[in-house]
Amino acid sequence: MSTFLTILGFNSAIPTVNSAPTAQFLEMDERSFLIDCGEGTQVQLRKAKVRFSKVNHIFISHLHGDHCFGLPGLIASFRLLGRETPLHVYGPLGIKEMLETIFRLSETHRGFEVVYHELQSKESEKIYEDNRLEVFTIPLKHRIYCNGYLFREKPKERHLNMAEVSKYPEIETCDYQNLKNGKDFILSDGYVLKNEILTKEPSKSVSYAFCSDTRYTEQILPLINEVDVLYHESTFLHDLKEMADYTGHTTALEAARIARKANVGRLILGHFSNRYHDLNVFLNEAREVFPNTELPKALQPVQI
Amino acid sequence: MSTFLTILGFNSAIPTVNSAPTAQFLEMDERSFLIDCGEGTQVQLRKAKVRFSKVNHIFISHLHGDHCFGLPGLIASFRLLGRETPLHVYGPLGIKEMLETIFRLSETHRGFEVVYHELQSKESEKIYEDNRLEVFTIPLKHRIYCNGYLFREKPKERHLNMAEVSKYPEIETCDYQNLKNGKDFILSDGYVLKNEILTKEPSKSVSYAFCSDTRYTEQILPLINEVDVLYHESTFLHDLKEMADYTGHTTALEAARIARKANVGRLILGHFSNRYHDLNVFLNEAREVFPNTELPKALQPVQI
Repeated sequence: MSTFLTILGFNSAIPTVNSAPTAQFLEMDERSFLIDCGEGTQVQLRKAKVRFSKVNHIFISHLHGDHCFGLPGLIASFRLLGRETPLHVYGPLGIKEMLETIFRLSETHRGFEVVYHELQSKESEKIYEDNRLEVFTIPLKHRIYCNGYLFREKPKERHLNMAEVSKYPEIETCDYQNLKNGKDFILSDGYVLKNEILTKEPSKSVSYAFCSDTRYTEQILPLINEVDVLYHESTFLHDLKEMADYTGHTTALEAARIARKANVGRLILGHFSNRYHDLNVFLNEAREVFPNTELPKALQPVQI
Repeated sequence: MSTFLTILGFNSAIPTVNSAPTAQFLEMDERSFLIDCGEGTQVQLRKAKVRFSKVNHIFISHLHGDHCFGLPGLIASFRLLGRETPLHVYGPLGIKEMLETIFRLSETHRGFEVVYHELQSKESEKIYEDNRLEVFTIPLKHRIYCNGYLFREKPKERHLNMAEVSKYPEIETCDYQNLKNGKDFILSDGYVLKNEILTKEPSKSVSYAFCSDTRYTEQILPLINEVDVLYHESTFLHDLKEMADYTGHTTALEAARIARKANVGRLILGHFSNRYHDLNVFLNEAREVFPNTELPKALQPVQI
C-alpha cells in the first residue's frame, strides 16, 4: 500500500499558460485526499487521470483564490456527473458561506451532501481519523487564517516471524492478531515467548506534511518532525526576504531550514512567485542547507 | 476598425483537458468586451495573448458555473497585477452578491472599483452606449435568468465624395461634418446641393449577437435580425430535442432555423454537449437549413 503524491499545480497567485495554482492529490493507504483546489484543478485532475469518484475529502489551507477558486467548478461538475457520495470539505470558517452562496445563486442543485468541517482553532487539531491514518492541522502564519495538513499513517501491525511461530504448534491462527498487536505468547507450561521473537518490526508508517502558505515559523517543527516528505512553500529566494515577510511567505533558504530542523526525509518546494522563470535557483538555494530538496513535478505521482 | 471575435471556450458544462467552458473576447471599434467567463478564462485570455488591461467590460449571460466561475480568479489576478482602472460587470441580479461574498471571505482587497450592472428585466434593454456602439440584452429562455447580448455599431458617417465636393469652392473644411451627417449644402445663390451627390454611402455598421444558453425561442428574432454574425448555442443534435427542451438548450437544427429566420450573415455554433466527439455532426445538421454555418475555432480571432 504505497503512498503517492501527485502535485497538480504549484505556482503562486496567478495561473498562467504553463502552470496551475496550488492543488495536490494524495493517495495513502487506499484513501485519497485532495489538498487545496486552485482555479482549474478539475482539469488538472483529468490530466493526471484521477477519477473524480476518488475525491471524497478535500482539505483547503486558506481562502485565497489560488488555493480554493477551483472548488465551485469541481463540485458543480461532480453534480453534473451524477455524484451521490457525500463530499467532505475541510477548511477555514467561511468556506461554507462562500460555497453555499455560490451554489444558491448559480442554482447548483446537488444530488449529494457536502459535509463542511470548518476550522478556526489556532492550535493543531486532529480533523480526520480512520483505522489506518490520521490527519492533523498545522497552523500556519499567513495574512489570512491558514492551515497546513499532516497526513500520517497510524503505527502498523508487527509482521509474524513464521519461521519462529511454526516451531510452536500451540500457537494457532486465531492467536496471530494478538502477536501482530505486540503481545507475548504464554505456552501451556507457563513459559513466556517474547513477542520480539515471534514477530518482526512493522513496516514504517508514512507521513506527509503540506505547508502552504506561510511565513517562516518554527512553531510547526514539533508537528512535522521527521515526516517522510515535507512540501513547504518557498515563494521567494532569500534576497527577497523582506518581500516574503511582508506578503506572509517563505524563502527557499527558510524552507530548507525548516526541513533540516524538523529532520524530514525529503523537502519538496513550491508556490513559486511568477517572477522566477528558472526554478533551479530555488533548488540551489535550498540544497545549500538541506540537500535532499526537490522541485515539484506537475502531474507526475511521486512515491512517499 | 475591424471587428474581431475570439472564442476562448465553447464547450458546455464540464471543462475538459481539450476544451474550455464559455468565454469570448470581442473587439469592436477599438472597444473590447469579454462575454461570459467560465472557469479557466484567465488562462484562455493569456493563450489568446489578450492583454488584461483590455478587459474593462464583462458581460455575463447567466450564473451557471460554466459561464461565470472564472470571474473571481480573473478579478483577483487583476488586483495582483496592480490594476487601477474600474471594471464594469454586467450580469443577472445576484452577481454582485456572489462576487462580493467571495472577495470578502477570500480577503481579496481590490485597488480598483468593480461597477456592477445587475440585470433583471425580461425585456431587451440597452445596457451600454458610447459614441460608436451600443450593447443590448437579448432575453433568453434557460433554466435560470439568462441574457444574450447584441453588440451593434451605430450608423456610421457618410463618406465625402471629394471629386464632387472639390467642384464647389464654397464648401469649406468646416462644412464637412454636416455633409458626413447627411445634410444638404445650400450654395450662396440658394441652389441646394443634394447630400447624396456630395457623399457616398457610409461603411456598413457591424453587429454581433451572442445567444447562450437558451431553448429554441423565436422571440429573439426581432433583436438579432440581419446581424452579421450570430453565435447561437446548439448543445445537442435534433434527435435529442427532448433532452434539449428539458435542459433548456437548443439543437443544431433549431439554431440554424433561428439563423435563417433572422436572415443573419453567418452562424457560429457552440456550447456542445461533451457526449459528441466529432463536432462536424453539428455542422452537417445545421447546414441543411442554414448553409453559412461555422464551427467555433478556439483562440483564433475571426473577423466579423
